[in-house]
Amino acid sequence: MGLPLTPLAARLPSSVPFVGPEAQERAAGRPFRARLGANESAFGPSHHAIDAMARAAGEVWRYGDPEAFALRAAIAAHHGVAVERVAVGEGIDGLLQVVARLFVGEGTPVVSSAGAYPTFNYHVAGFGGRLVLVPYRDDREDLAALVEAAGRERAALVYVANPDNPMGTWHDAAAVEAAVAALPEATVLCLDEAYGEFAPEGTLPAATLEHPRLVRLRTFSKAYGMAGARIGYAITTREVARAFNKVRNHFGVNRIAQEGALASLGDAGHLARVRAEVEAAKARIAAVALGHGLAPLASATNFVTLDVGADGATARALVAALAARGVFVRMPFVPPQDRCIRVTAAPAEMLDVFEAELGPSLDHVRAARAAA
Amino acid sequence: MGLPLTPLAARLPSSVPFVGPEAQERAAGRPFRARLGANESAFGPSHHAIDAMARAAGEVWRYGDPEAFALRAAIAAHHGVAVERVAVGEGIDGLLQVVARLFVGEGTPVVSSAGAYPTFNYHVAGFGGRLVLVPYRDDREDLAALVEAAGRERAALVYVANPDNPMGTWHDAAAVEAAVAALPEATVLCLDEAYGEFAPEGTLPAATLEHPRLVRLRTFSKAYGMAGARIGYAITTREVARAFNKVRNHFGVNRIAQEGALASLGDAGHLARVRAEVEAAKARIAAVALGHGLAPLASATNFVTLDVGADGATARALVAALAARGVFVRMPFVPPQDRCIRVTAAPAEMLDVFEAELGPSLDHVRAARAAA
Repeated sequence: MGLPLTPLAARLPSSVPFVGPEAQERAAGRPFRARLGANESAFGPSHHAIDAMARAAGEVWRYGDPEAFALRAAIAAHHGVAVERVAVGEGIDGLLQVVARLFVGEGTPVVSSAGAYPTFNYHVAGFGGRLVLVPYRDDREDLAALVEAAGRERAALVYVANPDNPMGTWHDAAAVEAAVAALPEATVLCLDEAYGEFAPEGTLPAATLEHPRLVRLRTFSKAYGMAGARIGYAITTREVARAFNKVRNHFGVNRIAQEGALASLGDAGHLARVRAEVEAAKARIAAVALGHGLAPLASATNFVTLDVGADGATARALVAALAARGVFVRMPFVPPQDRCIRVTAAPAEMLDVFEAELGPSLDHVRAARAAA
Repeated sequence: MGLPLTPLAARLPSSVPFVGPEAQERAAGRPFRARLGANESAFGPSHHAIDAMARAAGEVWRYGDPEAFALRAAIAAHHGVAVERVAVGEGIDGLLQVVARLFVGEGTPVVSSAGAYPTFNYHVAGFGGRLVLVPYRDDREDLAALVEAAGRERAALVYVANPDNPMGTWHDAAAVEAAVAALPEATVLCLDEAYGEFAPEGTLPAATLEHPRLVRLRTFSKAYGMAGARIGYAITTREVARAFNKVRNHFGVNRIAQEGALASLGDAGHLARVRAEVEAAKARIAAVALGHGLAPLASATNFVTLDVGADGATARALVAALAARGVFVRMPFVPPQDRCIRVTAAPAEMLDVFEAELGPSLDHVRAARAAA
């Protein structure tokens, strides 16, 4: 006999939704000079958060509070919702796993967009779900088509990211609220708002919006600059938040992360500064790209998606050429979005490297294409 | 329609394997004076680890390496095993979830001991497994009976903790190796060695021991003093380690925790000091207990299990009486082990509190029993 894997585990691939930049660095034998591929915030966390985490390091012999009570209370106050509606987890990836586990079993229909967040798909497949993928429309997630597909397929779950990753596009709050109101009666909407803090006023529905089958996900990984801390939260109904306790890893959230997140929430000034820095960096990325004939998409996130103006192979070659020159970027996985690359807003030193290397990288790609 | 929970999720209780001491502190309106209930190491992490974590706080805007490559390489070198045999996860709790998910589906038989680690049972139930529980024998896990039950039930998974929690007892390496050699052909052995660093020489089989269905779990939560960091590892076969990649949360391990664990591994002096402090603390706990007529069990861990010499209700009353006096301890859940309470080794100031409060707590319990 071999290993007694479950039938589902036996047929799953041994996969990685994203290869980390560290693996590329090990293969290349040198670090990237500009880390612009994972939509991390190189502007860093609040100094209050850094101080709180450094202090917490000496107290890390204690398990973190499994109820993350102080943090949940602060999140609830921050958004003006009841604390019982807030669940904390190991980043949005960890929360997506909990959501998939609650609602997805063998053969359960689940709807997402073709080319949306691969880690959601990974978790759905990991619990045996059947993914139904809806094309983007004009580089935006197609809310009406997603809701329609969810009804047609009697999907247990539909995934929407607003603002969207990897395209950076968005819908306004009214459009999201209309999708929520139109949700089929058998479907939970998983609304990933990882980039919500970067979006223009009027993009996010009010935090107090309540619907029996709505789960909204937020994170400290992006605007708060704490990707490595693995901490995020859900705002949902009391009933769904209670259901998280059926399957979550109760002691899973790092104590240092809880302290850092709590301090972050209290530093509105830092958040405002990061937003301003991100806007300036995005403008610079767009200008550099335009100077080389690449069209930037309007973005409500901390990255700019650049239309390379050719096919997926060309964009992939550009990502590789940039990597060879020390610039880590990523790109959408699925046509037609894979004509683009995606560049994260970052401090000037990193964008200097991007600016210096984009031209030579494009030259390399165009020369290779011409020779082929 | 209500929520479209899976049938399994619908029937799971909304539970918590352990209520955290913070919840008790909130209810009491004051902090515990002695935190001796969760087998944390109040001796703290290595100063090298604290420094590494404090430094990493400013770098936490980066996701951690999803392959935890540097740490896995260091663990592999530390134990003299191939790096491909090492998997890193969010503490043993997180690794247990992965193991359960790979091997346990609806109705899968799983064997453990009656009163062993509840979080293992939580994960097994969470994937629909059918738990078969084997009694302890003389306050030790009964290796022969566990293996026999695994064969009889055709169990996919059998759980053994060596040293054991909550009793602190242990088997020597030869006995564990005999159990491994006798494993039924359909069964994976999940060998939890969370307390392995505290055990006497000759307790742990060589790290190089390899069996196609053996998964050994280790952690930085106990002897390394990093419970709040949520980081542990598995040593297993290449095949099982690869299978972890089918379902694990690839970016789930905190970057600060990875840095702290790496620094911890390099500080053998700290580990030796902690072991010596733990031995001294255990001797003191045993002496204090004996002075009050409670019998300490021999322990290969960082806690001492004390036989209160009466029934479970009496031990529960003693836990409550100690809590009312500011002392957090826990106790085994299941008879006959629930005649005991469990006290974690800790620095002198905390044991001073324990020593001062044990007598009055016992008086309170005995008075209440006499009055009843």
